Amino acid sequence: MKFSTIYEPIQEDLVKVEDELRSVSKVDFSWLSELLDYSLSGGGKRIRPALTLLLGKFYNYNLDYLLPMATSVEIMHIATLVHDDAIDNSAIRRGKPTINSVWGKEKAVLLGDYLFAKAGEYVAATRNLRVIKLFAQTLRTISTGELAQTFSAFNVEQTYEQYILRISYKTAALFILATESGAVLSEAPEESIVILNEYGHNLGIAFQIVDDTLDFIGTERELGKPVGSDLAQGTLTLPAILLLERYPEDNPVKRLFQNRDEQENIKLAIELVRNSSIVEECYRAASDYCSKACRNLNLLPDNASRRALMELADYVVQRKR
Amino acid sequence: MKFSTIYEPIQEDLVKVEDELRSVSKVDFSWLSELLDYSLSGGGKRIRPALTLLLGKFYNYNLDYLLPMATSVEIMHIATLVHDDAIDNSAIRRGKPTINSVWGKEKAVLLGDYLFAKAGEYVAATRNLRVIKLFAQTLRTISTGELAQTFSAFNVEQTYEQYILRISYKTAALFILATESGAVLSEAPEESIVILNEYGHNLGIAFQIVDDTLDFIGTERELGKPVGSDLAQGTLTLPAILLLERYPEDNPVKRLFQNRDEQENIKLAIELVRNSSIVEECYRAASDYCSKACRNLNLLPDNASRRALMELADYVVQRKR
Repeated sequence: MKFSTIYEPIQEDLVKVEDELRSVSKVDFSWLSELLDYSLSGGGKRIRPALTLLLGKFYNYNLDYLLPMATSVEIMHIATLVHDDAIDNSAIRRGKPTINSVWGKEKAVLLGDYLFAKAGEYVAATRNLRVIKLFAQTLRTISTGELAQTFSAFNVEQTYEQYILRISYKTAALFILATESGAVLSEAPEESIVILNEYGHNLGIAFQIVDDTLDFIGTERELGKPVGSDLAQGTLTLPAILLLERYPEDNPVKRLFQNRDEQENIKLAIELVRNSSIVEECYRAASDYCSKACRNLNLLPDNASRRALMELADYVVQRKR
Repeated sequence: MKFSTIYEPIQEDLVKVEDELRSVSKVDFSWLSELLDYSLSGGGKRIRPALTLLLGKFYNYNLDYLLPMATSVEIMHIATLVHDDAIDNSAIRRGKPTINSVWGKEKAVLLGDYLFAKAGEYVAATRNLRVIKLFAQTLRTISTGELAQTFSAFNVEQTYEQYILRISYKTAALFILATESGAVLSEAPEESIVILNEYGHNLGIAFQIVDDTLDFIGTERELGKPVGSDLAQGTLTLPAILLLERYPEDNPVKRLFQNRDEQENIKLAIELVRNSSIVEECYRAASDYCSKACRNLNLLPDNASRRALMELADYVVQRKR
């Protein structure tokens, strides 16, 4: 299954989102234009704006509102990545040097602020107070999740439940913004909004579980960044939690988090995960969330978008990057 | 002139803003609560929320909208300070260790994001699309000004006009948000909004010129941070621009920006500025902006707020911190 197939019902309008993103870097100052162009044209799967547009297709599809909203969620997503990379000192993202590695941390922080503001302007253009409020709440939820992650860094005492809560904040919240805004702006009835939010929430969690698993089993080329980045940052994700459960005494993750002696223990942890059923277990967890995501979709109108949402859920647990 | 006198017409409601700020740190996670409480209870002059409230007094003073708006502008202000300090590696602000010096840069960046989001939630509570849009534009303008400052750091080739433009972005924009939102939310007629924005814009510029001058002539105790911080960051402000004009050849600012050899040349630049008419010239520039700020206030209804705005303009050029 390829994106071009899944996105088929909204392909043309997704091109308009790209046009909008390009228009953002048309500003008076050349130094700013360069920064914006570099950060916004980074590629990526554009899952979040695709969700907003797909969800809009169930009811009153009005591009006057859905296009700025889809653009807004993608810019907010990019802004969070720019700040994340600055915070983590990441050098590479999607195979490209990060903003902080090219321009420095200071500019990365300010560019992220600029992008949050721009996303705010796009959401204001929807003129819909409900999604405007949700936008601000979502940014606060994401920041809380990211803060939780820094406060729990290098702590091995984290449960599966705490992990799921953290990724709900950090990742699923933005998926919910994408889905709820698409539903609200297309005037979906409240009972459909509930179903579509359930989809967004569970898809977001599945997406992050797979992301966290790929950090162990992917290649640097596929990931567009070094393997084992999460462990290096002291972030305990599902594969590491399962590994700690399996080897509670002598465990490379435990040693790594205690001694912060990176390479050797990271390599060992990756090896252990790869050669165990942990990978399978993680994918099973992700699949379960994808099933939950889709379980009530059949109550919605049967259309090309509904099929696309099903396919997207399948894709999320099959993807390699 | 003391604040308690200037703020007299809105004193009670400014207490409500403080209550709101305190309520922000009432959250479930104790680690987050502590961060929020530390950043929001830092004191400060609360000029921006005071402006919003004072401006509301000319027409339809409705606290349901003005209170969240006043809270929003103050939180946005604090968020920008938290990011500024993280970017500049500042250790002290208002005599207190900064967030980045106590909790580290990562948490400072994320806390700033959280606060921007919270400010966004407060502005959404006004349910007024015009001020919501202005809020997002303002954050973008401020970020542009801050970025401009980092791109022009350690560059001696900056004109007075570029400096004024930079501080319009960096500082005056938020004063305009404070004034315009107060005017709009109290249903001021458009011609009054123009006058009140002129006040906000010019007061903001005057405020920043004085701030930049105090960085040369204040004491560490008065400033709540080291003297000469701007020069140390490579930020060229009005006193330094005038000093470069006066001594175009052999100049400590020039040497400092070329060699980045801090202490000796900073001390020398401060000495030269203090013992020249540059200080007077800076205050004259600030006074001119304050006069511009007030020149059309007499077209507004004559009330206690109008007198307070006049007094505030006087205060801005007399203040010592």
